[in-house]
Amino acid sequence: KSQFDPATHPHRRFNPLTNEHVLVSPHRNKRPWLGQVEPPQPSNLPQYDPNCYLCPGNTRAGGRKTDIYNDTLIFENDFAAVLPPPGPAAPSAPHPLLQTEPVQGGCDVLIFHPRHDLTLARLSLPDIRKVIDEWCKIYLQRGREEGIAYVQIFENKGAMMGCSNPHPHGQVWSLSIVPTLPATEIKNLKNYALTTTLESSAPRGPYGRACMLCEYVHFEVGVESESGRVVTKNEHWVALVPWWAVWPFEILLLPYKRHISSITSLTDEGKDSFAQILSTVTKRYDNLFACSFAYSMGIHQRPLPRPEGSEGEDEDDVAHLHLHFAPPLLRSASVRKFLVGFELMAEPQRDLTPEQAAQRLRSCSDVHYLDVD
Amino acid sequence: KSQFDPATHPHRRFNPLTNEHVLVSPHRNKRPWLGQVEPPQPSNLPQYDPNCYLCPGNTRAGGRKTDIYNDTLIFENDFAAVLPPPGPAAPSAPHPLLQTEPVQGGCDVLIFHPRHDLTLARLSLPDIRKVIDEWCKIYLQRGREEGIAYVQIFENKGAMMGCSNPHPHGQVWSLSIVPTLPATEIKNLKNYALTTTLESSAPRGPYGRACMLCEYVHFEVGVESESGRVVTKNEHWVALVPWWAVWPFEILLLPYKRHISSITSLTDEGKDSFAQILSTVTKRYDNLFACSFAYSMGIHQRPLPRPEGSEGEDEDDVAHLHLHFAPPLLRSASVRKFLVGFELMAEPQRDLTPEQAAQRLRSCSDVHYLDVD
Ligand SMILES: O=P(O)(O)O[C@H]1O[C@H](CO)[C@@H](O)[C@H](O)[C@H]1O
Ligand SMILES: O=P(O)(O)O[C@H]1O[C@H](CO)[C@@H](O)[C@H](O)[C@H]1O
Repeated sequence: KSQFDPATHPHRRFNPLTNEHVLVSPHRNKRPWLGQVEPPQPSNLPQYDPNCYLCPGNTRAGGRKTDIYNDTLIFENDFAAVLPPPGPAAPSAPHPLLQTEPVQGGCDVLIFHPRHDLTLARLSLPDIRKVIDEWCKIYLQRGREEGIAYVQIFENKGAMMGCSNPHPHGQVWSLSIVPTLPATEIKNLKNYALTTTLESSAPRGPYGRACMLCEYVHFEVGVESESGRVVTKNEHWVALVPWWAVWPFEILLLPYKRHISSITSLTDEGKDSFAQILSTVTKRYDNLFACSFAYSMGIHQRPLPRPEGSEGEDEDDVAHLHLHFAPPLLRSASVRKFLVGFELMAEPQRDLTPEQAAQRLRSCSDVHYLDVD
Repeated sequence: KSQFDPATHPHRRFNPLTNEHVLVSPHRNKRPWLGQVEPPQPSNLPQYDPNCYLCPGNTRAGGRKTDIYNDTLIFENDFAAVLPPPGPAAPSAPHPLLQTEPVQGGCDVLIFHPRHDLTLARLSLPDIRKVIDEWCKIYLQRGREEGIAYVQIFENKGAMMGCSNPHPHGQVWSLSIVPTLPATEIKNLKNYALTTTLESSAPRGPYGRACMLCEYVHFEVGVESESGRVVTKNEHWVALVPWWAVWPFEILLLPYKRHISSITSLTDEGKDSFAQILSTVTKRYDNLFACSFAYSMGIHQRPLPRPEGSEGEDEDDVAHLHLHFAPPLLRSASVRKFLVGFELMAEPQRDLTPEQAAQRLRSCSDVHYLDVD
């Protein structure tokens, strides 16, 4: 029998954040692709598009007008997925297997910049910093509203990720419940904290306990050259293709020097460092296939900010701030990975190893391809 | 406060098979869609395509030839996601958080019919029955191979579901491990059997214990006219949009008259009945938007068939045979639901209620739109 080689032998890896596995079939990347190719993305977008409802001063589908703005703009989604509290109580279940739980909350849209043709990858660091400051503001504001239990900040970028408008923007959904995935992550982080005796010199979580993510990233940064899953890092943040990545070029982005439970716990420097690495990651993504790289991005952190004036640690501090990037492209600007069939019915499967993906992203330039002359 | 109305008030429903929630936002279906539309599907496909590697006698990408066949054909995938056992042993984990598990097995392709232009929706009942018989055969064959722990039968249909060839075919992946989703379902079915005192007259699972799916479908068929989640049923099978459906027109298809742990436990009549309802479901799907309806379909059942000659019940009989259909279309042949952003980072969200979806599918004809003159 030959020796196990992760780049040759199919295997599965375990994701301790979700308790799920991913099947890695590295050799499969060689098969010819005869399936759907993505339409080319719009290039040469105008700086202002009179038909874009996110450009300053234009009218939206609901009839309301988008304000004139200079930096960022936040407004309530005209087609929100949830409605403000209070709502009617849950009806009794017609059968124990048919449970209903009312959900209330609010949905906001955050425009990153007035220019229609830009993306995070093409914004200046001060402009990205303004986006981060808006995230902090809305997280604090929504997170302290009555009846809200969770604030999800995310971005859908690119038509192939269901984004209906290229104007740079993200969303914030604030809900009366903690959704499935972050609830699972928090449960697993708590469980890790309670059951792990820490021997490494990684930063610790609340109550001096082990933090799974601090521990994981400490290991990855320590073996950086060897393991090769780190894509880039700066003073406070590291971007890596996690051991258990599902999407071909998935990235986990997180602070690694100390345990940080939410964006509002970042220092001013930590926020600048965040802006810098967001810029680098999105530029490298665009450079990978010389296109505006589609992805879904989400921020996971404490379900809610600490109550005003609170000091010291609490249970929710078990969360360690991190961002997931889920980009679908696999081989080129037009060939994506479909998570279908086996993936939907059994288990996610990937066609190149996380180490190979990280290597590809490391070899990309930090200078955006559109800025190279 | 008004009364709770599932078609008006956002709420979440619980999926007891997976322990996950889905956020239902029915009013959201009204928003205008300005995003990506799917390219029209190929129409007027030839009965034989000289460039199709699944048409009888043609050469495949790997260089091998597809046999000449009259009904169905099964062959090993030229680009299998797993390789046959035995493989090298797992290396030791470099850190407890970085677990590797080697996976072995085989991947088969099952061609449903020699005609390039047909789909399940357009096959005759005897032809569909032949597909079912092939599923039984390969499930028994692969499932009794040394080192195999699980057999996943599935179909990706349509370019938007990552299917690279319209020639009617499905896949069978046989693995040395039980993948995440079926493992979770089986865990939850076991747990239900052990903790539920059954009072209804639903069929019982092994050892006279409660079967979650028998119980669920018994309830749905019983309240059929009222709840409106049943799409169609026949002597042995029922197709319904489950209470916890994620995809807009998701269907759960299962036998409801007795507990059946795998396709090989179906009687001859049960298999004919299966062919008939597969035909009805796929026809209604096509009729919904007058197009060849894309979906991923998967069969969940006992991880492996019973060992040859075994009699009586065993632990794995806790599984109740069922098929999931996960179709992406939402509003028309070209507007799909994107499960992105919030869905990937937090929790699946749907824009119409399962009851509304079932109503739409009930109102579709059983005669394929291409056969209406
Ligand atoms: O094997 P195929 O049909 O070429 O590939 C398709 O199905 C596989 C199994 O669901 C997926 O992993 C691929 O992403 C998809 O494109
Ligand atoms: O609200 P948008 O951007 O129009 O819609 C997009 O993001 C939502 C949240 O991730 C998804 O539910 C939609 O399917 C997607 O099209």
